[in-house]
Amino acid sequence: MPPSRPAVVLLSGGLDSYTAAAIAQTEGFELHALTIHYGQRHAHEIEAAKRVARALGVRRHLETNVDLRGIGGSSLTSDTPVPTDRDLGDGSIPASIASTYVPARNTMFLSLALGWAEVLDSRDLVIGVNAVDYSGYPDCRPEFIAAFERLATLATRAGVEGARFTIHTPLIALTKAQIIQRGLALGLDYSLTHSCYAPTADGRPCRRCDSCVLRARGFAEAGARDPLIDD
Amino acid sequence: MPPSRPAVVLLSGGLDSYTAAAIAQTEGFELHALTIHYGQRHAHEIEAAKRVARALGVRRHLETNVDLRGIGGSSLTSDTPVPTDRDLGDGSIPASIASTYVPARNTMFLSLALGWAEVLDSRDLVIGVNAVDYSGYPDCRPEFIAAFERLATLATRAGVEGARFTIHTPLIALTKAQIIQRGLALGLDYSLTHSCYAPTADGRPCRRCDSCVLRARGFAEAGARDPLIDD
Repeated sequence: MPPSRPAVVLLSGGLDSYTAAAIAQTEGFELHALTIHYGQRHAHEIEAAKRVARALGVRRHLETNVDLRGIGGSSLTSDTPVPTDRDLGDGSIPASIASTYVPARNTMFLSLALGWAEVLDSRDLVIGVNAVDYSGYPDCRPEFIAAFERLATLATRAGVEGARFTIHTPLIALTKAQIIQRGLALGLDYSLTHSCYAPTADGRPCRRCDSCVLRARGFAEAGARDPLIDD
Repeated sequence: MPPSRPAVVLLSGGLDSYTAAAIAQTEGFELHALTIHYGQRHAHEIEAAKRVARALGVRRHLETNVDLRGIGGSSLTSDTPVPTDRDLGDGSIPASIASTYVPARNTMFLSLALGWAEVLDSRDLVIGVNAVDYSGYPDCRPEFIAAFERLATLATRAGVEGARFTIHTPLIALTKAQIIQRGLALGLDYSLTHSCYAPTADGRPCRRCDSCVLRARGFAEAGARDPLIDD
């Protein structure tokens, strides 16, 4: 087995980033997990990120703050209610981009991951963007990821010296059900994760926001039980 | 005169970003200034940014925090001493990239500016990168800026809907002396600014770091007196 190479993985505490990280681990990467607090209201995700990082046995878990509340523009960083009970029809979020879209979020996340990767002498970033999200969020599309890889070469000292960065998106072509099946096959414990945009005061999922609805449908289609849901 | 268009300008409190902002203002932009605190040691820059924003009469000055100390990799975000008394020979910083390089810094700064621009329905970002810096810092080069413009289209809801973002770099081809001459011609008060990487406890420039040395040479070549220096 080759020696493990360091990779920086963006870890939110959600189901997707946990699965993406675990897949990268099976490919031989030594994980350096980066969790970015961005003034989001669902702070329960941060506790979930700590649990997930521990379960994965990452080499290091770095948490950093970026305050996006002043910038606004998203129901995830403001007091605007997140939408609930929407008809998600074909499994994607509606064609009009959801109010949960955070402007330029993945650009900012990947730029921080890139900075850390350069310091670690790593050439590999891992992000859990997927097919369900990218129909609504522009910065989850393959063409965005490819453009960021090109930018990374130009943006860094390592790139100037000849390095090429790879952004691994192991979930990008998978449905939520396929992601869950893959994760369960790897033995992941999804009770550690947190996906809800608008949890109850005690941190339980609302079961009505887009994220809860897509998660529930994913477990149903995967023929599995969501350990976060009792009934 | 056409109605002013909003632009997001990255304002550090240094001489360059003040001049870049003032030039954008002469081009009819209404300035929204963004200052990013990144755990840098030269916190005096932040006070300078407030003074400069006030002097420019910006529409809004937003300050936000991004903690890069956990990431490390730069003498500006760690306890490593900044280099001083270096031979800056031809006016550029040495060919080996300085320890003051902050990994992926401008990528992160521009991504935050992009997020705010999208919220403001602005298509214009302004950054004071220049010819002196880009010989050492990869993320000050024209090809980096062009790559970020392409990324911005793919990264945002506005881009998906057809918008194109422009990153204005009015200083990119100017020497420090030319920047100072341009700013003085616009009536800028450089006593408001702060450039030093390693100021004294009372906030006075060290006059020995790269930034102080390049600033002093710029004023000398411009045939002007630096109002921050008494003698």
